[in-house]
Amino acid sequence: MGKNLTSRKEDYSKWYNELVVKADMAENSAVRGCMVIKPYGYAIWEKMQAELDRMFKETGHQNAYFPLFVPKSLFEAEEKNAEGFAKECAIVTHYRLQNDPDKPGKLRVDPNAKLEEELVVRPTSEAIIWSTYKGWIQSYRDLPILINQWANVVRWEMRTRLFLRTAEFLWQEGHTAHATKEEALFEANQMNNVYADFVENFMAIPVIKGVKSESERFAGAEETYCIEALMQDGKALQAGTSHFLGQNFAKAFDVKFANKEGGLEYVWATSWGVSTRLIGALIMTHSDDNGLVLPPNLAPIQVVIVPIYKSDEEFDAISQRANDLMKTFRDKGISCKYDDRDTLRPGAKFAQYELQGVPVRIAIGPKDMENNTVELARRDTFQKETVSVGALAEKVPQLLAEIQTSLYARALDFRNTHITKVETFEEFQNVLENKTGFISAHWDGTPETEQKIKELTKATIRCIPLDAENEAGKCVLTGKPSGRRVLFAKAY
Amino acid sequence: MGKNLTSRKEDYSKWYNELVVKADMAENSAVRGCMVIKPYGYAIWEKMQAELDRMFKETGHQNAYFPLFVPKSLFEAEEKNAEGFAKECAIVTHYRLQNDPDKPGKLRVDPNAKLEEELVVRPTSEAIIWSTYKGWIQSYRDLPILINQWANVVRWEMRTRLFLRTAEFLWQEGHTAHATKEEALFEANQMNNVYADFVENFMAIPVIKGVKSESERFAGAEETYCIEALMQDGKALQAGTSHFLGQNFAKAFDVKFANKEGGLEYVWATSWGVSTRLIGALIMTHSDDNGLVLPPNLAPIQVVIVPIYKSDEEFDAISQRANDLMKTFRDKGISCKYDDRDTLRPGAKFAQYELQGVPVRIAIGPKDMENNTVELARRDTFQKETVSVGALAEKVPQLLAEIQTSLYARALDFRNTHITKVETFEEFQNVLENKTGFISAHWDGTPETEQKIKELTKATIRCIPLDAENEAGKCVLTGKPSGRRVLFAKAY
Repeated sequence: MGKNLTSRKEDYSKWYNELVVKADMAENSAVRGCMVIKPYGYAIWEKMQAELDRMFKETGHQNAYFPLFVPKSLFEAEEKNAEGFAKECAIVTHYRLQNDPDKPGKLRVDPNAKLEEELVVRPTSEAIIWSTYKGWIQSYRDLPILINQWANVVRWEMRTRLFLRTAEFLWQEGHTAHATKEEALFEANQMNNVYADFVENFMAIPVIKGVKSESERFAGAEETYCIEALMQDGKALQAGTSHFLGQNFAKAFDVKFANKEGGLEYVWATSWGVSTRLIGALIMTHSDDNGLVLPPNLAPIQVVIVPIYKSDEEFDAISQRANDLMKTFRDKGISCKYDDRDTLRPGAKFAQYELQGVPVRIAIGPKDMENNTVELARRDTFQKETVSVGALAEKVPQLLAEIQTSLYARALDFRNTHITKVETFEEFQNVLENKTGFISAHWDGTPETEQKIKELTKATIRCIPLDAENEAGKCVLTGKPSGRRVLFAKAY
Repeated sequence: MGKNLTSRKEDYSKWYNELVVKADMAENSAVRGCMVIKPYGYAIWEKMQAELDRMFKETGHQNAYFPLFVPKSLFEAEEKNAEGFAKECAIVTHYRLQNDPDKPGKLRVDPNAKLEEELVVRPTSEAIIWSTYKGWIQSYRDLPILINQWANVVRWEMRTRLFLRTAEFLWQEGHTAHATKEEALFEANQMNNVYADFVENFMAIPVIKGVKSESERFAGAEETYCIEALMQDGKALQAGTSHFLGQNFAKAFDVKFANKEGGLEYVWATSWGVSTRLIGALIMTHSDDNGLVLPPNLAPIQVVIVPIYKSDEEFDAISQRANDLMKTFRDKGISCKYDDRDTLRPGAKFAQYELQGVPVRIAIGPKDMENNTVELARRDTFQKETVSVGALAEKVPQLLAEIQTSLYARALDFRNTHITKVETFEEFQNVLENKTGFISAHWDGTPETEQKIKELTKATIRCIPLDAENEAGKCVLTGKPSGRRVLFAKAY
């Protein structure tokens, strides 16, 4: 099966598209730009959700649910936000179908069932949530509000790709309300740190924390914190964002609170989100020409056991052993599967689990039974070793931990060797086209220069790293003075 | 706070509406018919989800995700299903907003961004899922497919009520595909049993398992299994349904499989769902004039500790004890809260937790500290007792289990005394108006009689119980022969 996959070198984009489908993660649907997330892909999303949800609750957040639809008059209230999303909104205009008088058996939109006010299918929920918060907030005692929502959102993108950019996607969106600017800034930064922690430690993807330049900010935000990852083809991917929204939404929806002194103030806001897009990042960070490579933390199946046998007696003995091992592993919280199908040869099973990125494979044959051993293979390095059965209870959890660490180290090494400092625009173009990756360069701080660089190279400012040092320099395009370097890259 | 609640006797419907809002479960939103599920209500939904999800996975199902939108041409493919939902569909017709040239700062639907084919916001997902399954099923080896989806759906209801009937609601929908009719029937019945098990044992709501009459069936189903519950006002509530869909969707979407003998057959289908509506059933089954009464299995907070003190020294000592108790309870998997707010008096806190249905309340005052005791109060019966601190680790889990059992027993007793056998139509009308509840009566089996009874009494056939005995009798309206009794009731 792996053999049928286009190689990354040949065509990275084609490799990705094929892999998502062949590994049974997702597929395109009958609805333009919308995907079907298949059980194997969804199982990964469930693991991500469980961990993120735990982290959100640990930092004091609760879940709630707000409507899918946003009345147009609420949607347009915060003008910058509305302007940012207006061009990609699905709009509900009618609420009924009727039999089509011209086409028996077919339906048409009932012209008499037109809504008085159109409804926008939420591309993000600030508007509907802040129109709700208005009713919840009177006094400083009602603050902070720390709420998260797991939901689907719709952005009518013209060019879509499975997981990376789809018209409908699944995400979580946190929406918090605070009495002070400092508290809101702290929250926005804290949630960006939660994302970084999750993406690095759970997904084994190294990220750079930073803030966006003004033109890359979320529409309606005063500051956008972000985490940026680097894919194997040298393109960057924005893995999560956390916005300090200032008082923009409080002003748009007139949300004021009585402070301790009895004065009325506008409330401060944040919002933050990550989406199924992260699954695209996961695939593009770790996988290889043989298929998916999954960090053990996210693998729906962490260990698969494949029997190799000729006779029924051999099969029965191996099955007995496999079931004992499964019990041992499950008691340690390891998810495992015994593939006893008699319709596929062991080689075909090996190829399938390679394609689907199962971190550890155990094969048991007649010789292993004689010697009381198994063959242990790891997906990331293809290393195999013969291990005695008695050692597995200790060895397998260690190996899973080692794979997790090693995937992160490998990705970190790749990322670190793909941050290149440049001083001239010629170097900039050269690195971007040949070496690829992040380019660390001085920029004069103007949107005009940023735009010009984008037009000339397709590279954008991915972020101004939070740990960027003050360093006097000259803008790589205009030569104007700059106080610190920013990171440019082509991006997904 | 409880004092402000309309009593059930006075106006049951008003009591319900007030309770949902005052207990901080949900509220109406700016979007007609759509609700905001607040954190306290959503926490109950999360507990329901976790338990149901576990039960689905234990019975071999996996989760996946299918698009929110259904192209009109797919929606209308299964005609009965389409006809059943056509009148309550939200329709997306455009994909872009633009600046309104007549109203600066306002947006309007861009007339140039009309979709070639309208999209229906899913009221249920059979159409989009079976159009997908077509690509997944070629041979008997691809079957069964056992998939569940957690999702939002939209049905444009004219009269809405929080949780019970809303334009958008949250639910799960299982969609399975099978090689044989027997297997599909087994699945539909199995999932109805899973629902019954969940609703009775987890939510403490007794249900009657049955099948729907033809006119009450799901649009497109050949048989609808259901569980029916009885609310305190004597009205029935359909708590879950599981449909045997025959080959209707396979035929509509041309989904055939090669059987073992090499012949081509249409695939057999089921679908089954429960929704946030169950939260309405939960409230209406157990709660009282003082507020919510929650079964411990579903209570976001199972035990609350309230300190009663005058001096700071007293407060510190009580807090120390409360924190020790919290640790003890949490180690036993009990969710608990220590309410140390100094802005509310103990009485106000008591009223709040009564209103929010926290099953067990512990109060600790200076006298308790002296005697090494606490006051333990249960929400369902208002019984209080003084218990020594050392006994709590054993006593509290016991008490929670007892409350769970006792709520079920109370509801079962109410339900059982509200199933009334009647022989004449006069009795039927009399019981329906005065005693209320389920009416067990003979029916001649025709949709016409069913319709006539509905027009005359507003009662519908809730189900034909699965355990109904064969019993010769005469239809309560027409006097025509009947082979067994069915259950009628007015229903939510």
